[in-house]
Amino acid sequence: MTAPTLKVDLALVHYPVSNKNRETIVSAVTNLDLHDMARAGRTFGVDNLFIVTPNSDQQHLVGEILDHWSTGHGGKVNPDRKEALGIIRLSDDLAGVYEAATQKWGERPTVLATCARCQGDGVQSYEAVREQIFSGQPILLLFGTAWGLSSEVMQAVDGFLPPVCGQMEYNHLSVRSAAAIVLDRLLGKR
Amino acid sequence: MTAPTLKVDLALVHYPVSNKNRETIVSAVTNLDLHDMARAGRTFGVDNLFIVTPNSDQQHLVGEILDHWSTGHGGKVNPDRKEALGIIRLSDDLAGVYEAATQKWGERPTVLATCARCQGDGVQSYEAVREQIFSGQPILLLFGTAWGLSSEVMQAVDGFLPPVCGQMEYNHLSVRSAAAIVLDRLLGKR
Repeated sequence: MTAPTLKVDLALVHYPVSNKNRETIVSAVTNLDLHDMARAGRTFGVDNLFIVTPNSDQQHLVGEILDHWSTGHGGKVNPDRKEALGIIRLSDDLAGVYEAATQKWGERPTVLATCARCQGDGVQSYEAVREQIFSGQPILLLFGTAWGLSSEVMQAVDGFLPPVCGQMEYNHLSVRSAAAIVLDRLLGKR
Repeated sequence: MTAPTLKVDLALVHYPVSNKNRETIVSAVTNLDLHDMARAGRTFGVDNLFIVTPNSDQQHLVGEILDHWSTGHGGKVNPDRKEALGIIRLSDDLAGVYEAATQKWGERPTVLATCARCQGDGVQSYEAVREQIFSGQPILLLFGTAWGLSSEVMQAVDGFLPPVCGQMEYNHLSVRSAAAIVLDRLLGKR
């Protein structure tokens, strides 16, 4: 079976995001976010995972991690990890991500945000988005770090994915876990 | 709506597990495994997450992490995290986990292992296990660290869950991501 061509990208956003007091901040990059989201991305056929941060020190840190796994010792002892981290791209801002994805796919992707509380207008079902993906439409999924994507980002996207929930009200997944579940729902083998 | 009573426990196994040369080892505890799996567990209604390690230094480390989030500073600044980590229990070995779960539920739980390559006899569908759970049967899900549960563990379980896959052959999820996806498939709100 030939795998279908999927045009899905992820962006893990470190600015602009909210802190617990709803102020807009630049969050710090977490090493394991890169690993877990790249591994899940590669497993489910994501093309690129964009790490979005305007902070040059943080960009330098991401660059060092990627070097370790692409040309350094890490990639030699664990080639599967090298392959996963190979999907990561750095971007100063979301505008750069939109531009890169548009150039790559030849059309602007549909930009969907994920959040733990999304409801109402603009929320699309996982089934509907899965159908869009498997019909070949480019999709860019945004994930926020810290306390989530800032309101200015949320207001500018094309739509939202419903929150990932269990049977109870408590809902505090890590962004790594939420991303894995979202990818399984949209791209998992059935 | 009253949430159904779910009798689901997780065990994250650090011994006996395999290394990349298929030798049986004790793996080291990863702090973020505890956080991510407890958060996903609490979100999806898991009763306990058992951390299995016979190593007293590692048990001490887990104890310190739990103290920080139960009675220490962590729990004060982030009560949601305190609630999540409250589902964690330590166990020397899998026998202790089986005993604790059996005592709690009044019957021995069905023990299911997860792995990235399971196939053939004993593999149960997610749908079938979901039905068992929602009919009130106690289920214990085993997750291996390092290169996975050792063959002696795999031979002694009641069954297996199918591997979590995308559309291609590459499949190298972190145990944190795999656990989140498995819980969503078995317990997620639909």
